[in-house]
Amino acid sequence: MSSSRAIRLALPLFLVAATLSTTAVAQQPTKAEQMLKYRKALYTAMAWNFGPMGAMAQGKMPYNAADFALRAQRVAEIAPMLAESFGPETKGLPNSELKPEAWDNRADFDAKMKDLVDRSAALAQVAKSGDEAKAKAAFFDTANACKACHDKYKKKD
Amino acid sequence: MSSSRAIRLALPLFLVAATLSTTAVAQQPTKAEQMLKYRKALYTAMAWNFGPMGAMAQGKMPYNAADFALRAQRVAEIAPMLAESFGPETKGLPNSELKPEAWDNRADFDAKMKDLVDRSAALAQVAKSGDEAKAKAAFFDTANACKACHDKYKKKD
Repeated sequence: MSSSRAIRLALPLFLVAATLSTTAVAQQPTKAEQMLKYRKALYTAMAWNFGPMGAMAQGKMPYNAADFALRAQRVAEIAPMLAESFGPETKGLPNSELKPEAWDNRADFDAKMKDLVDRSAALAQVAKSGDEAKAKAAFFDTANACKACHDKYKKKD
Repeated sequence: MSSSRAIRLALPLFLVAATLSTTAVAQQPTKAEQMLKYRKALYTAMAWNFGPMGAMAQGKMPYNAADFALRAQRVAEIAPMLAESFGPETKGLPNSELKPEAWDNRADFDAKMKDLVDRSAALAQVAKSGDEAKAKAAFFDTANACKACHDKYKKKD
């Protein structure tokens, strides 16, 4: 008991805060709001990695195989997290860029997310090989998966 | 030429924006500011996954082996991204929670980040096995890696 308490006290404060009840912290965001915040953070992390890959793929920045491959790996890791961040509890939340149509076409939305996951995984594999032409082609495949979903389900792009 | 242009036009707007020069977009954040935003997004993504693991590890939420293992996997993927987000160009930026001491003790800071990467990788492996006691112990190992860095290099926790 006392050792378990000592462990608890040794935890970083962010962990303690995460386990407080919502009644104890009146201004605590709801689980749904936290999920939306998570989703937006993931898009930020995605863009950080994807942007320079786009510049390289378009020849606006010199192609750096190692940097391209590392970013492709990150994109492939973030994509499944993104797919997990559209829980039904976030439906109707303000400040979301998701069009309401996504909830009426959930199977199509999920298929588009799966495309992103699958294509970014393929991109990470190809990028590792260092074949510039194939890596760039795989990048555009992935970018088109982004675009297909944005065009249909994102309020503005 | 025309086919390359067609590909470019088909890209999502966020990609086009990422390749615009800073003179074209006066209010564009600097690379350093973008990296800090990336870092903060990663901490948000980390907390989303780590928080419920902490509640489970502390017995405040029922232990769900599959959910714990998935979150452990996410934490293990985010940790190396975090380590990449402390580039020297972010030194001295306002709105950072990093203490200036981190720059004077860079080797120690990097060693602490490596601890996080290594321990979260071990946590993800153990969590996959489904052994609750070992998974919880590995969780506290990882939480202590968070805490060691926060205590020394985070402005407030």
